[in-house]
Amino acid sequence: MASFLPRPVEKVIEQFEKLPGVGPKSAARMVYHYLRARNGEARALAEALIEMENQVVDCVKCFNVSLTQECQICGSKLRDRKKLCIVEEPLDVVAFESSGIFKGVYFVLGGVISPADGISPEELRFKELKKRVTELMNSKESEELLEIIIAVNPSLEGEATSEYIYSLLKQAVQDGGVKLTRLAVGLPTGADLEYADRVTLKRALEGRTPF
Amino acid sequence: MASFLPRPVEKVIEQFEKLPGVGPKSAARMVYHYLRARNGEARALAEALIEMENQVVDCVKCFNVSLTQECQICGSKLRDRKKLCIVEEPLDVVAFESSGIFKGVYFVLGGVISPADGISPEELRFKELKKRVTELMNSKESEELLEIIIAVNPSLEGEATSEYIYSLLKQAVQDGGVKLTRLAVGLPTGADLEYADRVTLKRALEGRTPF
Repeated sequence: MASFLPRPVEKVIEQFEKLPGVGPKSAARMVYHYLRARNGEARALAEALIEMENQVVDCVKCFNVSLTQECQICGSKLRDRKKLCIVEEPLDVVAFESSGIFKGVYFVLGGVISPADGISPEELRFKELKKRVTELMNSKESEELLEIIIAVNPSLEGEATSEYIYSLLKQAVQDGGVKLTRLAVGLPTGADLEYADRVTLKRALEGRTPF
Repeated sequence: MASFLPRPVEKVIEQFEKLPGVGPKSAARMVYHYLRARNGEARALAEALIEMENQVVDCVKCFNVSLTQECQICGSKLRDRKKLCIVEEPLDVVAFESSGIFKGVYFVLGGVISPADGISPEELRFKELKKRVTELMNSKESEELLEIIIAVNPSLEGEATSEYIYSLLKQAVQDGGVKLTRLAVGLPTGADLEYADRVTLKRALEGRTPF
């Protein structure tokens, strides 16, 4: 539908269409929002994007988004370096942080192994993960690492990735006496058992806890 | 959820949230798409937005988006200036143009009267519309205007806007012998009568055509 619009308008539509969950119609709606408003909003987005591109880097330790070489979490003296939580992406760190339930440190893997999407282990930060774990295990200045929590999404790809992490770290953690755990899979609170999928129900049964 | 992210990332999320149909979660997804890819896509969008802001103007005649003072349609010798089609927004012009069913010229109103959204007649291009109609009626170089088609959306606001256009142009078009028409309201092709709303069904009945 874009071919009846001026080329600069089409180009913005094309860029919006690359975003997850944005189709041609919603991309056109978004662009029209700017054309209609003409209040500098498009420029504000452009400037915010450029600022983000220029300023945001990966933390050298956990690969979370950061403005500094070492992110606020990795740099904080208040975090518990005895616990390392491995997540897929920065938004997962946000999920944990906003819930306030975890006071350890993180490692952002950059995704999960997904042959269907062309994501092989080489594309993820497994090498960096191993290095970081070794670092935490042998750290002189902080306490010893006691637990690594695998907190990837409980999808098929997440399962495969968990297995991969397990085989990658098994030897090191056994030698160092580090616990390797993963998030519980079960029924979410408020869920209806009747509508639970088979795998979730199976895992909830397997992981049943004493009352 | 954004408060655990670096400020430049938050700022992009805030800008995305202003877009129609984009909530906090999808805005975060979009931004993460850029943080994950790091392939210059964010910069490409920023540059496209700035190019659009710098280059795109309203056509002086029809107020459609344009790169030139007069848009391609208004400037074309092939368009039929006997027919003027009034639409709400540039994307409606795209809808007509991509269907290839209309060879006249357009006028983009800029929206519809909607007290609920704070859009009063003063915010729309009624003055410009009247001027343009007078211009087309008295044009020496082109053929005389014969028909004005009101093609706003058949919403409640669209109806009110149509009435407003009617009262605005009634005198002029009567004096000049110009037909004032509007798009048919009825059942869309493929629709199920059973699920049609009352107003559509009523209008479809009223507007019934000989078999």
